[in-house]
Amino acid sequence: MGVAVIGASMTKFGQRDAWIRELLSQAGEECLTDAGVAPDDVEHLYVSNMSSGEFEGQTGIMNLLAHDLGVLPAYSERVDQTSSSGGAGIYEAWQSVASGASEMTLLVGAEKMTHKTTGQATDIIASITHPDEYKHGVTLPSFAGMTARHYLERFDAPRESLARVAVKNHRNGVDNPKAQFQKEITMEKALESPIIADPLRLYDFCPITDGSAALMFTTEERAKEITDEYAVVSGIGGATDTHVVHERDDPTVMGGVVESSEQAYEMAGLGPDDLDVAELHDMFTILEFLQLEGIGVADQGTAWELAMDGATAKDGDLPINTSGGLKSKGHPLGASGVAQGVEIYEQLVGEAGPRQVEADTALACNVGGFGNCVITTIMEAAE
Amino acid sequence: MGVAVIGASMTKFGQRDAWIRELLSQAGEECLTDAGVAPDDVEHLYVSNMSSGEFEGQTGIMNLLAHDLGVLPAYSERVDQTSSSGGAGIYEAWQSVASGASEMTLLVGAEKMTHKTTGQATDIIASITHPDEYKHGVTLPSFAGMTARHYLERFDAPRESLARVAVKNHRNGVDNPKAQFQKEITMEKALESPIIADPLRLYDFCPITDGSAALMFTTEERAKEITDEYAVVSGIGGATDTHVVHERDDPTVMGGVVESSEQAYEMAGLGPDDLDVAELHDMFTILEFLQLEGIGVADQGTAWELAMDGATAKDGDLPINTSGGLKSKGHPLGASGVAQGVEIYEQLVGEAGPRQVEADTALACNVGGFGNCVITTIMEAAE
Repeated sequence: MGVAVIGASMTKFGQRDAWIRELLSQAGEECLTDAGVAPDDVEHLYVSNMSSGEFEGQTGIMNLLAHDLGVLPAYSERVDQTSSSGGAGIYEAWQSVASGASEMTLLVGAEKMTHKTTGQATDIIASITHPDEYKHGVTLPSFAGMTARHYLERFDAPRESLARVAVKNHRNGVDNPKAQFQKEITMEKALESPIIADPLRLYDFCPITDGSAALMFTTEERAKEITDEYAVVSGIGGATDTHVVHERDDPTVMGGVVESSEQAYEMAGLGPDDLDVAELHDMFTILEFLQLEGIGVADQGTAWELAMDGATAKDGDLPINTSGGLKSKGHPLGASGVAQGVEIYEQLVGEAGPRQVEADTALACNVGGFGNCVITTIMEAAE
Repeated sequence: MGVAVIGASMTKFGQRDAWIRELLSQAGEECLTDAGVAPDDVEHLYVSNMSSGEFEGQTGIMNLLAHDLGVLPAYSERVDQTSSSGGAGIYEAWQSVASGASEMTLLVGAEKMTHKTTGQATDIIASITHPDEYKHGVTLPSFAGMTARHYLERFDAPRESLARVAVKNHRNGVDNPKAQFQKEITMEKALESPIIADPLRLYDFCPITDGSAALMFTTEERAKEITDEYAVVSGIGGATDTHVVHERDDPTVMGGVVESSEQAYEMAGLGPDDLDVAELHDMFTILEFLQLEGIGVADQGTAWELAMDGATAKDGDLPINTSGGLKSKGHPLGASGVAQGVEIYEQLVGEAGPRQVEADTALACNVGGFGNCVITTIMEAAE
């Protein structure tokens, strides 16, 4: 059964003076309004969230949201796949409609993080890593630093190419009123910012963020009755890579990205050349390169060239992260994958405002851990 | 597409000297063996778990388990629906196969709880309740006490009827080598145990438990190729009730049980009279009555009579909780719903050993919170 997206919303991302309950409700209500769907019509509600218990001492948030939105007796469930919880929520929402279990599924992703210190937040995030690596003190930023160094040396890529990702995504974020940072940065600023995990510097990393995002899914048949402006989830796939990062054959190959994108392309009957726009999981700048290669847009070791020649800029051949990406939009763990879906949906239905590009086919790649789990989603504009 | 269950396993439930990682692996490996499925054949892996982060400081457990079982690159995801996370996992596993996303889905539920003090565990569990009720100090046991008092008075039911549920389920647990408690209790012992939430006493409550359980799902078509002994998930439904418990119209009606069982009966084309055996969520003895009424086996206010006249005993008209129920088998939150599925699967394929009853049709009802969310599953023996 064809699955369509008929509505989207997101709260302002950033340091928010609101708890997760309020963030979820705001995004959920705005999505109901955007889709023109009454609460009574919602049959399944998924909440993408990694750690509301650890961050806020509040669990059962899917039941709480179902209650607050007035969608009872809709089925409600929380989906966790660490940083790719949002993408996993898209996969579950798709399955709920494709299986016939639900005709109207609301997905809301959220995380509330900034009330913790950076150290506390980093501790919670580090709890996803393999115990055998965690005990050696390896964190996600350190994986990123080691991978970046290896990539730059092995493929003879200039350090500037990473900074260009940050500069581009900050530029895109200026046009996104929901982004955490709406400010341009210069190459100099990126290249002279403090070292975090050599060779990566402050501007190679996404921030810690509060925020929520939502999408409404239904059957293609029902979508046609409701609206002319919808997108179709034509391909989707998910995959897991080794949980011990150092066991991977090649540190520059994200196996989960390769596998999940192959599944999505096969389902959609498309390939990388068909893409018009994409959101990639730029938690660290180096990941934008690895994903461009993983989804088949660039050969191994060459994605940095796309950053250098502007091919991934908004006016380039394949605009990447028109939303500003995790880098400038922010990365509230459970919301990020949903927000990627919001961006490609808005691009496909022509609601992206100053960020709008011409797009009939779009891809989103949401990464958990250091590529430990990945969801790739392809959406197409309704014909 | 018809969805079948072709394998099941569970670890010993109780106070276990093992972390959640080991519990998950043990159940997962035994389920692969029981189903005769190679790790490579698993396409989706769901982990039902409420709070590994809060209980153990370990998150990302679905990626960890995928790694440990060697099922890569299978998609892996954690499903949380508080105490009904296991039932939610069954629903997701069903959707993954019914939607065509996966042909072979492994579901493993687990919780590791006993290393915390009772106070710490109760705090974690209480974090699921609505903030407006939580701040007044209302806990799940106190809801149970108030509901039991109301039920006994309103329906003129004897206090002994609740004790009979405990005595019956402890009797059933004697025949379950995986149960936390394999010991009979007397009516006197139950009725004289310490008061916890008047009128409920110690033996009206399930224990705190470590444990894991697993089920293997595939298409009915593929099941036929693999084995003669399988069960079919012929009906399934899920629903959410008010998150503020005191907002419900009638405290003795579990709306989520009514709604989810109606969905499951409709999908299966069956009714309560067709059931041969059922597992109900007896976190508190009173809940066995409310669920018998919610699934339509007894009229409102009459389920206590079934306990008094032995109709729900193993040799009665409709045996309830042949596994021993949460009461004697134990209640590791994320595992309990899966373990209910294990019991009805084993009853349907004739693998329940000394607990075996004659059964072609079975139901499991898994409850989160105080009925805040509910999953009802109906399985039938393969023809």
